[in-house]
Amino acid sequence: MYELGVVYRNITRADRAAADGLGALGSATVHEAMGRVGLLKPYMRPIQKGVQVSGTAVTVLLHPGDNWMMHVVAEQIQPGDIVVAAITAECTDGYFGDLLATSFQARGARALIIDAGVRDVKTLNEMNFPVWSKCISSKGCIKATIGSVNIPVVCAGMLVSPGDVIVADDDGIVCVPAARAAQTLEAAQKRESFEGEKRAKLASGVLGLDMYKMREPLAAAGLKYID
Amino acid sequence: MYELGVVYRNITRADRAAADGLGALGSATVHEAMGRVGLLKPYMRPIQKGVQVSGTAVTVLLHPGDNWMMHVVAEQIQPGDIVVAAITAECTDGYFGDLLATSFQARGARALIIDAGVRDVKTLNEMNFPVWSKCISSKGCIKATIGSVNIPVVCAGMLVSPGDVIVADDDGIVCVPAARAAQTLEAAQKRESFEGEKRAKLASGVLGLDMYKMREPLAAAGLKYID
Amino acid sequence: MYELGVVYRNITRADRAAADGLGALGSATVHEAMGRVGLLKPYMRPIQKGVQVSGTAVTVLLHPGDNWMMHVVAEQIQPGDIVVAAITAECTDGYFGDLLATSFQARGARALIIDAGVRDVKTLNEMNFPVWSKCISSKGCIKATIGSVNIPVVCAGMLVSPGDVIVADDDGIVCVPAARAAQTLEAAQKRESFEGEKRAKLASGVLGLDMYKMREPLAAAGLKYID
Amino acid sequence: MYELGVVYRNITRADRAAADGLGALGSATVHEAMGRVGLLKPYMRPIQKGVQVSGTAVTVLLHPGDNWMMHVVAEQIQPGDIVVAAITAECTDGYFGDLLATSFQARGARALIIDAGVRDVKTLNEMNFPVWSKCISSKGCIKATIGSVNIPVVCAGMLVSPGDVIVADDDGIVCVPAARAAQTLEAAQKRESFEGEKRAKLASGVLGLDMYKMREPLAAAGLKYID
Amino acid sequence: MYELGVVYRNITRADRAAADGLGALGSATVHEAMGRVGLLKPYMRPIQKGVQVSGTAVTVLLHPGDNWMMHVVAEQIQPGDIVVAAITAECTDGYFGDLLATSFQARGARALIIDAGVRDVKTLNEMNFPVWSKCISSKGCIKATIGSVNIPVVCAGMLVSPGDVIVADDDGIVCVPAARAAQTLEAAQKRESFEGEKRAKLASGVLGLDMYKMREPLAAAGLKYID
Amino acid sequence: MYELGVVYRNITRADRAAADGLGALGSATVHEAMGRVGLLKPYMRPIQKGVQVSGTAVTVLLHPGDNWMMHVVAEQIQPGDIVVAAITAECTDGYFGDLLATSFQARGARALIIDAGVRDVKTLNEMNFPVWSKCISSKGCIKATIGSVNIPVVCAGMLVSPGDVIVADDDGIVCVPAARAAQTLEAAQKRESFEGEKRAKLASGVLGLDMYKMREPLAAAGLKYID
Repeated sequence: MYELGVVYRNITRADRAAADGLGALGSATVHEAMGRVGLLKPYMRPIQKGVQVSGTAVTVLLHPGDNWMMHVVAEQIQPGDIVVAAITAECTDGYFGDLLATSFQARGARALIIDAGVRDVKTLNEMNFPVWSKCISSKGCIKATIGSVNIPVVCAGMLVSPGDVIVADDDGIVCVPAARAAQTLEAAQKRESFEGEKRAKLASGVLGLDMYKMREPLAAAGLKYID
Repeated sequence: MYELGVVYRNITRADRAAADGLGALGSATVHEAMGRVGLLKPYMRPIQKGVQVSGTAVTVLLHPGDNWMMHVVAEQIQPGDIVVAAITAECTDGYFGDLLATSFQARGARALIIDAGVRDVKTLNEMNFPVWSKCISSKGCIKATIGSVNIPVVCAGMLVSPGDVIVADDDGIVCVPAARAAQTLEAAQKRESFEGEKRAKLASGVLGLDMYKMREPLAAAGLKYID
Repeated sequence: MYELGVVYRNITRADRAAADGLGALGSATVHEAMGRVGLLKPYMRPIQKGVQVSGTAVTVLLHPGDNWMMHVVAEQIQPGDIVVAAITAECTDGYFGDLLATSFQARGARALIIDAGVRDVKTLNEMNFPVWSKCISSKGCIKATIGSVNIPVVCAGMLVSPGDVIVADDDGIVCVPAARAAQTLEAAQKRESFEGEKRAKLASGVLGLDMYKMREPLAAAGLKYID
Repeated sequence: MYELGVVYRNITRADRAAADGLGALGSATVHEAMGRVGLLKPYMRPIQKGVQVSGTAVTVLLHPGDNWMMHVVAEQIQPGDIVVAAITAECTDGYFGDLLATSFQARGARALIIDAGVRDVKTLNEMNFPVWSKCISSKGCIKATIGSVNIPVVCAGMLVSPGDVIVADDDGIVCVPAARAAQTLEAAQKRESFEGEKRAKLASGVLGLDMYKMREPLAAAGLKYID
Repeated sequence: MYELGVVYRNITRADRAAADGLGALGSATVHEAMGRVGLLKPYMRPIQKGVQVSGTAVTVLLHPGDNWMMHVVAEQIQPGDIVVAAITAECTDGYFGDLLATSFQARGARALIIDAGVRDVKTLNEMNFPVWSKCISSKGCIKATIGSVNIPVVCAGMLVSPGDVIVADDDGIVCVPAARAAQTLEAAQKRESFEGEKRAKLASGVLGLDMYKMREPLAAAGLKYID
Repeated sequence: MYELGVVYRNITRADRAAADGLGALGSATVHEAMGRVGLLKPYMRPIQKGVQVSGTAVTVLLHPGDNWMMHVVAEQIQPGDIVVAAITAECTDGYFGDLLATSFQARGARALIIDAGVRDVKTLNEMNFPVWSKCISSKGCIKATIGSVNIPVVCAGMLVSPGDVIVADDDGIVCVPAARAAQTLEAAQKRESFEGEKRAKLASGVLGLDMYKMREPLAAAGLKYID
């Protein structure tokens, strides 16, 4: 449940090095390292292809069809932040376009994650400002009702608190709580370190059945081969 | 983001009188009194009609297709609680049927709110055990992976913390944070107290345009009448 | 495309007898009589069961999350009208509850058709005020932006002009242009007049294959029976 | 993949007693007894409440917006059959109304399962003809293109072969292959036989945690209790 | 509601210069200039990226799964037109492929807007024939039932009359009534003229809060900053 | 209905030359040649653009959130196969990433068709391993429950038997039964042979109305031109 009409100016951001390290690993590896939690719903899609970013969350809660708070959140952005925008009800309007992107970029924002629509996507791509959104829509917004900035919000089904690490790429978006950033990085790096060796084995024709020693548990579970 | 594999046994429940008072007012009035926040997404629908309940949230986080933790949460139910069940990914399976309902009812649960499917709905209705769910499905679940009980969860797009007040009826489901239950009840009762008078005026043919003195602001906003 | 900020006070309503006659036949028969056009999308569902109504359309265009114009349209309702509400973008908020229903009913409205949500559905059912809507939601609206009344609107994918006949029942909602109400009634009544005889034949075991003489055209189309 | 333009007149129906026995147990129990397969997608919903039926499948494949083959399948119905209708592409039109229901009922059909829309639902309820469908729509169909009768079809995501047992109730629809009807009935009855005892224990306050001896495996899986 | 079986040969097209001028501004700017109306639903997506077109609407109404009228509308295309295709019920079939595109392109069509599916998308891209559609599908259509050409249609939730201006790009599709094309162009150009200056200010770090003088109204609305 | 816990090692694959020939023609032409059946639902989308493949189906049935059987199916892949993966209930998890793709590619698989999610899509594109899926998701899977390999499965609404030909491109995915591969290839090639001539005529401005001699049947169906 949301506290309305407040802007928290001082938030504790996750450790920058941990945030950057997580970004290098990508959302799938980080999500696994978290124990398969933290993922925003997969309807969230990038407007660009091949971009992989991470940053610390600055959150904003908006009302349907109203993007007034986008200007309020802009002031709270610090270099390395990712803006995470939640709406109090489902909405497909275009909350964000090239002007706001110019402002966010000038403040040092690395990306926008928004559970609604955006517009000017051609220009956003030309500006290299990454966006993950629910949809794309030309429809603009009014500026009539206040929401909040830097409160915990639910974005695409996931709780995001200000300062959390956001990792986003073509596969999706993961939120790592600030307090768990370092340990998650460690766990994710450990996972990653085994990947190269596994890939080489699989590429050589070794089967996962053998590499992961699955034949016995599969038989124990009752799997039968029929010729 | 979720802490996995934990059961919090001691939670602070909202004041019982406030929880009961909010239930008497219904989800629409309570939602308004909260400043139009706190509502679970409207795809959540009751399996019964005409039921209006409230209670204190006991939360459970489950994995897709796995209802093991439903048995764990049963033990944490106290009379007057409502179980709020969230899933780590979208799932339509039937997590809950007549046996679990028997157990929940025996523990004193007033209702189940689940962002997934349920089954045995005919029997659930006969038992008078109220359920709000995303869908109905015969499909049962496995019991293989642990989740958590009484951590804050996101259910149908809304953050629910253990002990929060849940108000549910035909119109939907609202979550009131435990700390705000009393003040929300007061605000909601104030709203409600004016309703009878308004209804009588409107029934007599008085227009909202006049009762709410809207004609002037509408004209100021540019509304034009054309004969 | 919509003209904003206007209220047309004088509209030409379809002939009352034709509107009432169409209501008696139901949406499926009327839709067939129209040549299978005029149907609102089937996601529109009644909040009550078993109600069959017809009336002349009074239209209102609203903005997402804003129900200000519902009060404006109330004044334009005449006995026998059905209010048809369209929104300028997709929205699931609850635009209409028991107070507005009291006002609409006092003005003589027969029903509401709305491409968004409503609330207080238990009370609406008790009041016997029929509503067809896209969804049900506790979420209320603000009153900040003006729309229009009695302009042609697109509601659930269908164009509805003020004065058109609306026929609604459990099967759905059909819009009959005012200018075609009489001829549609005639065509629909002709269809209906054959129904009783057909039903009796089919009930006696005669097959549609024979009653409609379909065996020959089916064979001509290439249908083969295999024993 | 579908064979078009054929009607198979001779199909092997599942054993009647097995089909009837499965119907008495309901879709959830039968689905469990099958190893949690065989369920049609949960978007399929009954137009009535509280009905539980079973029967042998007579299948029909139709084209979008075209219900010509409904008349062809009517002739192939034998008492105790349930018609299962699949469409070659997604469609929400109303393929079936009171006249076809009269004919189906006269032939002895127990129900219709259709992955599209139906209409005249008020009359269908009055006739006590059970229907499970994807939606409800006034929109009628043309009769222009032939499909097939009694070929294997995919209905709501599940393969249904002619003669299979269909079990349908408020929870959903399960398809049991004719060849497995007897063994599934046996397995389902065994499941059911333990339900009464379990229910009594749970109602007395015994927890599933203890009744199913889950405490040890949960601890082994790492579940921790925090006071 | 639709008039069936007619082809209007003479339609009044919007002024060509206005249509072209609007295309240069893009859907978001035009939509704002219209007062935030006129947008087709955002589920309509381009099959290509980065294309921005405008033209005068030639409309066609088709039945589900039937593309016969696509050949009829081809004859009514004049250079500079955009074909707007509506279906009488929801359908995902592929109504349009490389052959029809060849014909449309030969007639001078600039694009197709269709509330259904298309196919041969790889070839369409190679031909540089822009399409906005609801989906992509290999499924072809029959040619059995007539619709209409150049009647007002509802396409993706918006009313489009023959001769209206269509503006389409990556952000979406806007319909501008022919009679309002000139004034909308003027309003849109005025909006656009301020954009460059605003962008420069925002890029230099000036906040929208200051540039738009929002601090005072936000405070008046109750926004509070917390350190 | 599915047989669980079995792996069929010996399947009859469609003729390789027919499978390759069908791939060259593309999904739309093949679908037409089949009589407009065999198409998987259009929500299945490629993760890459411009790829056109065909191959023989190796099928796998998995449970929601569980990709254990992906390792089992890998062993059954022969060069020229396409893996077709079905899930026993709706699921959006990422079942497949770069490691499994490495293994599949090493075994000679040409593509994956999966009615669920995949991840590592950037790497999959770099590897040139084509995938058609319902969605993209970072969420990984557990390995707890067995399914089956090389049984007939329903994938995205279509029945696919082991050995069937799969044709997939930007327009969608078609399944051709092994027994009909040769005759379908012949029919599709015949269709294709007329395309070049038609395209040339249409490009020169000849109308489909004349080329297909549609004017008379349209008039017979009642089409009227109005000047």
